[in-house]
Amino acid sequence: MKVDGKDIRPIWLDEDLKTVKVIDQRRLPHEFVVADLETVDDIITAIKEMYVRGAPLIGVTAAYGVYLAALNAPDNYGETDYLIKECRRLKAARPTAVNLAWAADRVLSAVLNIENDAERLKAARREADAIAEAEAENCRNIGLHGLPLIEEIYRKKGNTTVNLLTHCNAGWLACIEYGTATAPIYTAFDKGLDVHVWVDETRPLNQGARLTAWELGKHGIKHTVITDNAGGHLMQHGMVDMVIVGTDRSTYTGDVANKIGTYLKALAAKDNNIPFYVALPSSTFDWQLRDGIKQIPIEERDPDEVRYVQGLNQGSTISVLVPPANSPAADFAFDVTPARLVTGFITERGVCKATEQDVRRLFPEK
Amino acid sequence: MKVDGKDIRPIWLDEDLKTVKVIDQRRLPHEFVVADLETVDDIITAIKEMYVRGAPLIGVTAAYGVYLAALNAPDNYGETDYLIKECRRLKAARPTAVNLAWAADRVLSAVLNIENDAERLKAARREADAIAEAEAENCRNIGLHGLPLIEEIYRKKGNTTVNLLTHCNAGWLACIEYGTATAPIYTAFDKGLDVHVWVDETRPLNQGARLTAWELGKHGIKHTVITDNAGGHLMQHGMVDMVIVGTDRSTYTGDVANKIGTYLKALAAKDNNIPFYVALPSSTFDWQLRDGIKQIPIEERDPDEVRYVQGLNQGSTISVLVPPANSPAADFAFDVTPARLVTGFITERGVCKATEQDVRRLFPEK
Repeated sequence: MKVDGKDIRPIWLDEDLKTVKVIDQRRLPHEFVVADLETVDDIITAIKEMYVRGAPLIGVTAAYGVYLAALNAPDNYGETDYLIKECRRLKAARPTAVNLAWAADRVLSAVLNIENDAERLKAARREADAIAEAEAENCRNIGLHGLPLIEEIYRKKGNTTVNLLTHCNAGWLACIEYGTATAPIYTAFDKGLDVHVWVDETRPLNQGARLTAWELGKHGIKHTVITDNAGGHLMQHGMVDMVIVGTDRSTYTGDVANKIGTYLKALAAKDNNIPFYVALPSSTFDWQLRDGIKQIPIEERDPDEVRYVQGLNQGSTISVLVPPANSPAADFAFDVTPARLVTGFITERGVCKATEQDVRRLFPEK
Repeated sequence: MKVDGKDIRPIWLDEDLKTVKVIDQRRLPHEFVVADLETVDDIITAIKEMYVRGAPLIGVTAAYGVYLAALNAPDNYGETDYLIKECRRLKAARPTAVNLAWAADRVLSAVLNIENDAERLKAARREADAIAEAEAENCRNIGLHGLPLIEEIYRKKGNTTVNLLTHCNAGWLACIEYGTATAPIYTAFDKGLDVHVWVDETRPLNQGARLTAWELGKHGIKHTVITDNAGGHLMQHGMVDMVIVGTDRSTYTGDVANKIGTYLKALAAKDNNIPFYVALPSSTFDWQLRDGIKQIPIEERDPDEVRYVQGLNQGSTISVLVPPANSPAADFAFDVTPARLVTGFITERGVCKATEQDVRRLFPEK
């Protein structure tokens, strides 16, 4: 996507084929910094500390992690379970995103049976590249399949502004191109539809205020940053036409794990008869779990993410402590929205209801 | 209430009878500063800029504002509409809290027919003092009437921790003593019940993280600060036994205006069969409006309240900018929770359902 006129992705392999480059998203929007990742440990740090975040991007980063493991492996490691162990370490970096394990395992299984170290390395790179390209293509298709939903509202409103609400960042920064939740919005905008996005700031890490607002602004899309508390009020008063969010893991039965607070927006959308869509590539479906609320592990992160807020002060990005220094805090990173509150999934193959039957109709091979 | 062993209220009239002293709540929790208010303009600034906030405290502050108007009035102003005009200016300071107009008008009507300036002044002070004392007593009674609700949960849980969730600050800082939403909690704690409070940080101004956490901590009550996004997840997983919030204005039909985001918590409570109570003195009832969502004016405040977050950095309270500098923001300060989501009101006269019939049963004189 374009940043100040230059094409960029949130992750790429450097020309030296030794360095994975990522936009350090912790520093956005006030600083644009590219970080160099050269080892599996670097990759794990980048995932844990959230240089990179968002289900598809976490997957691609883990895929390149397996490539770096192969690159930095001891000689003749093919006979050992070195790669399997490194892959296991990568998969433990964050518990909720299902793409992490999916992508790492995909690269691993593409190379495990190759005997020659150099060939194995080349195959790992090819597979990681292929995952990245496939995610970009998935997002492009999510945009195309989501577009008619926005067009229909636009038409019904007599070609006046369509107001969308999104939570967290499921934009191109979380993916490779277009984003998931944002793909239909970018596609509608590029087609000339008048769209405006309510951007939930998305506490505690403010991915909405920091990343989604930055992305949309760079693309020239009208948007307004709001507190996570505001969406219900806006929906009550007809100021939201549609909610679109991403997901870190969705069960094939329709339950949606996404950034903490998504469930509250889904409840408000239901209460006000507003369509609530979840956009995702099929790699984000969990084909094992039936009951998202009971079975999807919810990551608890460092409470200091709640206690401290990062922002710009006098030209520097710094953190401030909000509550009393001795007040405890808790940081639940995700919640699960039950299928009954989800109007539909927007996938790379089309739109379906959040039901086992309809998901399986689109993905019969699973 | 106690702060570091010393009895204090959020507002009092200085011994000189010329200065209204208030805790400057913008500076909490990292600094404890008392501000001197000497004119009606000072009072309006303190209300608008939120040195003071919370429905009952705004009312008491406005009451002392009418007293200061009388104190600083030109000679023989009794024949003019000077006081009426000053009162009107006071009432325009914030639109949502109904107590503001109620308290200002109460002092005004107590003195309008007094002919002597000195007598009029004395009567204004007496009436403002009386309103402050009545609010303190109301909160004490709200605590006593709310206590059995917590006791019942405590008993049902086999005398294990009762987990309460509250939004914003409806504590003693918002009132005079005890608070409204916190009154049953303080009362239960003082009686020896094991209580723990989930404190919504309450964006944008973080009254939960800054004020409620500070109050509860000073009183020794177990609490955990969470993002406003987290409550739904906690309720889904049985980690919340009861929600108690305050209100800035509630219709006699049961609709509740409170800090933005309250509606989302009420939806989540309903979805998980968790009792959702609203604690209020009867001065917060609006006896005119039937439909809260359509009729209660919702204040929109400066978007910079959303864009900047205040906290402690290297010993100083400063603000940081979170979203991109050129991203617009919007700041809706309140929302309205419809009566159908409210389990009950806890008032100074007892507990009632959020229905016109039951509210009128408790307050038949209205």
